[in-house]
Amino acid sequence: MGKGGKSHEEASIGEEENMAAWLVGLNTLKIQPFKLPPLGPRDVRVRMKAVGICGSDVHYLKTLRLADFVVKEPMVIGHECAGIIEEVGGEVKNLVPGDRVALEPGISCWRCDLCKEGRYNLCPEMKFFATPPVHGSLANQVVHPADLCFKLPDNVSLEEGAMCEPLSVGVHACRRANIGPGKNVLVMGAGPIGLVTMLAARAFGAPRIVVVDVDDNRLSVAKDLGADGVVKVSTNMQEFGDFDIAQLKDVPEEVERICKVMGAGVDVSFDCAGFNKTMSTALSATRAGGKVCLVGMGHSEMTVPLTPAAAREVDIIGIFRYKNTWPLCLEFLRSGKIDVKPLITHRYGFSQKEVEEAFETSARGGNAIKVMFNL
Amino acid sequence: MGKGGKSHEEASIGEEENMAAWLVGLNTLKIQPFKLPPLGPRDVRVRMKAVGICGSDVHYLKTLRLADFVVKEPMVIGHECAGIIEEVGGEVKNLVPGDRVALEPGISCWRCDLCKEGRYNLCPEMKFFATPPVHGSLANQVVHPADLCFKLPDNVSLEEGAMCEPLSVGVHACRRANIGPGKNVLVMGAGPIGLVTMLAARAFGAPRIVVVDVDDNRLSVAKDLGADGVVKVSTNMQEFGDFDIAQLKDVPEEVERICKVMGAGVDVSFDCAGFNKTMSTALSATRAGGKVCLVGMGHSEMTVPLTPAAAREVDIIGIFRYKNTWPLCLEFLRSGKIDVKPLITHRYGFSQKEVEEAFETSARGGNAIKVMFNL
Amino acid sequence: MGKGGKSHEEASIGEEENMAAWLVGLNTLKIQPFKLPPLGPRDVRVRMKAVGICGSDVHYLKTLRLADFVVKEPMVIGHECAGIIEEVGGEVKNLVPGDRVALEPGISCWRCDLCKEGRYNLCPEMKFFATPPVHGSLANQVVHPADLCFKLPDNVSLEEGAMCEPLSVGVHACRRANIGPGKNVLVMGAGPIGLVTMLAARAFGAPRIVVVDVDDNRLSVAKDLGADGVVKVSTNMQEFGDFDIAQLKDVPEEVERICKVMGAGVDVSFDCAGFNKTMSTALSATRAGGKVCLVGMGHSEMTVPLTPAAAREVDIIGIFRYKNTWPLCLEFLRSGKIDVKPLITHRYGFSQKEVEEAFETSARGGNAIKVMFNL
Amino acid sequence: MGKGGKSHEEASIGEEENMAAWLVGLNTLKIQPFKLPPLGPRDVRVRMKAVGICGSDVHYLKTLRLADFVVKEPMVIGHECAGIIEEVGGEVKNLVPGDRVALEPGISCWRCDLCKEGRYNLCPEMKFFATPPVHGSLANQVVHPADLCFKLPDNVSLEEGAMCEPLSVGVHACRRANIGPGKNVLVMGAGPIGLVTMLAARAFGAPRIVVVDVDDNRLSVAKDLGADGVVKVSTNMQEFGDFDIAQLKDVPEEVERICKVMGAGVDVSFDCAGFNKTMSTALSATRAGGKVCLVGMGHSEMTVPLTPAAAREVDIIGIFRYKNTWPLCLEFLRSGKIDVKPLITHRYGFSQKEVEEAFETSARGGNAIKVMFNL
Repeated sequence: MGKGGKSHEEASIGEEENMAAWLVGLNTLKIQPFKLPPLGPRDVRVRMKAVGICGSDVHYLKTLRLADFVVKEPMVIGHECAGIIEEVGGEVKNLVPGDRVALEPGISCWRCDLCKEGRYNLCPEMKFFATPPVHGSLANQVVHPADLCFKLPDNVSLEEGAMCEPLSVGVHACRRANIGPGKNVLVMGAGPIGLVTMLAARAFGAPRIVVVDVDDNRLSVAKDLGADGVVKVSTNMQEFGDFDIAQLKDVPEEVERICKVMGAGVDVSFDCAGFNKTMSTALSATRAGGKVCLVGMGHSEMTVPLTPAAAREVDIIGIFRYKNTWPLCLEFLRSGKIDVKPLITHRYGFSQKEVEEAFETSARGGNAIKVMFNL
Repeated sequence: MGKGGKSHEEASIGEEENMAAWLVGLNTLKIQPFKLPPLGPRDVRVRMKAVGICGSDVHYLKTLRLADFVVKEPMVIGHECAGIIEEVGGEVKNLVPGDRVALEPGISCWRCDLCKEGRYNLCPEMKFFATPPVHGSLANQVVHPADLCFKLPDNVSLEEGAMCEPLSVGVHACRRANIGPGKNVLVMGAGPIGLVTMLAARAFGAPRIVVVDVDDNRLSVAKDLGADGVVKVSTNMQEFGDFDIAQLKDVPEEVERICKVMGAGVDVSFDCAGFNKTMSTALSATRAGGKVCLVGMGHSEMTVPLTPAAAREVDIIGIFRYKNTWPLCLEFLRSGKIDVKPLITHRYGFSQKEVEEAFETSARGGNAIKVMFNL
Repeated sequence: MGKGGKSHEEASIGEEENMAAWLVGLNTLKIQPFKLPPLGPRDVRVRMKAVGICGSDVHYLKTLRLADFVVKEPMVIGHECAGIIEEVGGEVKNLVPGDRVALEPGISCWRCDLCKEGRYNLCPEMKFFATPPVHGSLANQVVHPADLCFKLPDNVSLEEGAMCEPLSVGVHACRRANIGPGKNVLVMGAGPIGLVTMLAARAFGAPRIVVVDVDDNRLSVAKDLGADGVVKVSTNMQEFGDFDIAQLKDVPEEVERICKVMGAGVDVSFDCAGFNKTMSTALSATRAGGKVCLVGMGHSEMTVPLTPAAAREVDIIGIFRYKNTWPLCLEFLRSGKIDVKPLITHRYGFSQKEVEEAFETSARGGNAIKVMFNL
Repeated sequence: MGKGGKSHEEASIGEEENMAAWLVGLNTLKIQPFKLPPLGPRDVRVRMKAVGICGSDVHYLKTLRLADFVVKEPMVIGHECAGIIEEVGGEVKNLVPGDRVALEPGISCWRCDLCKEGRYNLCPEMKFFATPPVHGSLANQVVHPADLCFKLPDNVSLEEGAMCEPLSVGVHACRRANIGPGKNVLVMGAGPIGLVTMLAARAFGAPRIVVVDVDDNRLSVAKDLGADGVVKVSTNMQEFGDFDIAQLKDVPEEVERICKVMGAGVDVSFDCAGFNKTMSTALSATRAGGKVCLVGMGHSEMTVPLTPAAAREVDIIGIFRYKNTWPLCLEFLRSGKIDVKPLITHRYGFSQKEVEEAFETSARGGNAIKVMFNL
């Protein structure tokens, strides 16, 4: 087939064939055509093969917003993804069609101070998959910068490639908290982010990891995935809504149990839930001079014992997405230091019906950890 | 004079002559004899010449407690001090009688992990002047380890030497926040700690410092001492008591004014008050990737917008006292980079009546910044 | 004037009017036309007003090479520069024609690991003014990315703007060495780089700075610019060529003199010469746990007492150019914390004859510190 | 038995029974009585059970000196040791007679700036086993501060406890170099220090470690202990003596082979030999922005390509002994992350003849890695 054929193919991809899952209204996803932007000289076109559902995707579906971001126009959903290179731009040297790649979803500006200082995750001009008004990647194909597509090692599957995105949150948190073989770790919350943080902390060498949750099933999963100890706590941890000091009455006793299970000082706590109670527990349980990483984002305002923690120089480290994590995630997966496969509990195809079911499954929670599309 | 003479001298110092200000009950200070402990081989005996009153001294006087510390037995008060060496232990090499010295008040154990890691300010075995059950230094004489007594440069007065203690809090905060010539600084609160933090931030090279308070007089002092800009905010900042979301309604507008006065991003904020409102303002005003240092300790539980701050990776740094600060404070005073003399607003002698008046003046606040005893 | 007129102007700038100083052969500079590249959407066109001569420019002129870089084709020289914006690309928001700007000379790729980690100065794809095969900026006009052009404060002249480039080396060195108010500094070499490093160290708060050189005039300049102490050492410091252990015989005595002048431990040494002797002196003079920054690049192989230094955990920090330094340099110049004007000892216009003379003056050294073109 | 009995026991230990291996002259060790100092309130008396021979012990035996330390009086040798608590001082709380402990050999002053800043390994007043004039620990019993005696986990043997000392060098080097899962490591030299550094780097998470040596046997051991790759290099690496540039002629080709075996950039190199050639190789092989740790101490003066390394901002990190490493070493041994048992190649009893043989074995090298006494 000559040049004409290629034009034809491009046309068909852009206008006829390339379908994507669009968030078109509250609780409404529709598979519709998605016209790709032109391929720049440093871009690649990727055929998506595996796309996971993130809590933020579900949040957008249920509320059309997240923090300050509001979905005002129909938007393609999805940002945890991997696929196969179909076409590369003229200046792309490291990738060729056929390469299997995991995609880092955010395109930063590289002109602002934060980008130049190496904190590109904080770039105010960031264009991030499925963060309005930027389209996501639950589509047959997407166009993306080549330097954000990372070749998968031979023994890493496309689904595992898609898992680099949630795993990156844990890796970034461990880096910011300086996790290593001398750091005992407490993880508050055994949801997907709590679990990837636990796996990352283990891979960074944490000698002892205790996971806390309100749910026996989740704790059982955490244990199976390698937690050294688990602690079940009272259920008000999950409550949203107005602050109620009564929520915190169980904290001292639970901190005592946590410390007993740890059997040593807690050097770093990761709050992967983000509620008054989880954060209060994390702050109270962490040793003088330790750190608490706030990873989860349940509450916005929080009522927590900040002063007693500060008086022990327990620092609070904020976590926003990640930076420079894909190569390390892929190395963890390649070497087997981290196995994310057990986190993938549900798989769906890419039809209108299956997309709806998949999001329903993810939203319901229950025994679902990661829901994955195979396209 | 033989050994008998020396015994006689010791006896007279310990039992007859050495008087100290004892906290003997709620709101009750009494000048009474204070028997000194024996002089160890690495100790020195210091004749106190200048002792300042700290907010914590006042707090103990008014409540007999601070955080978890409770005054159960009569205790000598005071910990901001300087004096003249009277006698040195047998192994002391760096000091001789007659040397003018500033005293670092805390004796750490040097056997625990925190001491060995260089964070001795967090030592759980710390023995700190006027922190129960350890006696303080508002006395004619004290015995103290030689390595915690720092010789004053010739051009630094004993009063300035005593000011090394509060100044150390600002210096430690600036070190932990990594203040330098690239960091614009916001200081919440223009009390003594806010002012020393401002002075320290200037000495560390902060190019622009804005100070916020509810009181025009305090802001005027801050301006005189070198603040580049000041912002007056609404008075609910000072309120203790239960959380009231209404307290925070002025925050957005005040943050906007602060940022306008700064004229640039806030890299580091120091909350030197420690209330819901000051901390909320600090968290909101600080740029993505910046830091907030919690120095002041107004509230214990705090209700603050922790998650939005974490989502911009604004870290919260706890500050507890200081470590290794005396040499740097003395260098700042020697070189004139910091002038603490304007902070000393009131002076008293060491009589029963004057001690009572001095604490009253300090407690009343008003235009008193630092109240100093000359012994 | 219509589009035709604009084309005409562009043509005239590119082909007729824009002249540049080309390095066309050994010791041969020629002012010749320099065709500008097209203006990209994020580029600006700058009329050069001040261009300084750097040691590397002279080195290229005298040898057509520097380290691994070889001049194989005629190349426009010059990289220390400031000018006035003439035209801005369509997406440029922060600059408008007429703005006075200082130019950061290196364009990094922002796709490699080093760029993404915030160490863009190490980018292997760096395109840097007057580093072959990239053209420099000693020209009437250049085209440059807008984000590398920094607006001058009103009270900073264009010549001072051009001085941001050498000053950046000192600022980057001080940042890497973590200079602050607790760090006594030793500077080996009082040439242009030694002097800007001294000025930067002062601005970062170094309490005491001692400068060492073989030349009384240079030391006198260092003293005038604010060195706390200067030490004259034996002349073999300047010798290139094969290693001769005899060169080092004076080191112990000179280290003793340096320490006496410092009157305290040396926390950080900057070797701004880069010879066996200067580096040996720096390593020997620095206190246990201190740092030596290797800034100057005299010798390639060096024979130095590395092991005794390592056994005192004196770390050696390498310095290559700079990153993110222009805003801070401009703030130092605006605030008066650094005054670079005394460093500009010679000024020339932009004619064939003056260009030749200027480089001759710079190469000769003597009392020339910085030679500046005014275009 | 009453107090008299105890006195009797003390007397017998101190004067009759306690024997130690004394370095009494060049190549001369003698087992002779060793009178113990009195037991201080925070000291413990330990019955030595396992003592390893270090290269420095051999060096003292062969030359009576090491670096600036000279053996002027007979000195008890040995510092890698573990034993069983016999008696504890009155203020010792964490240990009781019968506890099995590993001993950290250095007693620092805790009064100097370096101790207070957390760098106690650099304390100028350090009293270190078998560093003149301080006696070592190859003795039946020693008296040592309780806080330097670390209780062995149940599954860690006394021999493994003694191995904490050499292992600590590797752990300290990995900490200073910030080894973690993102750092590919090159180890120059497969002697005991190279091997413990390799084991430590693995435990800190280094994904890929390449070990370089001149000896096939050593490389084979490195491979068995877990090196991902090994590279044999030319033998002049071992030569002491005057610098000969010819020694370095093989470096470029060997660096190329090393990089090929690594299959990725070298992030951190540890030079565990300390020769011109090993350091030159380390500096050349390490990627821009990486680090070289100088651990071994072969040469004093070194001739190395310092400038090209500095121009890639390859920093050189000095390593001196260790600090705060015992707890982590014991955790590594307990968890099985590090197995030091294969390093113990020879065992001897504590008789005059066996002591002589043991040192001979250690000095000869060959297939001896660690020679251990069982007392």
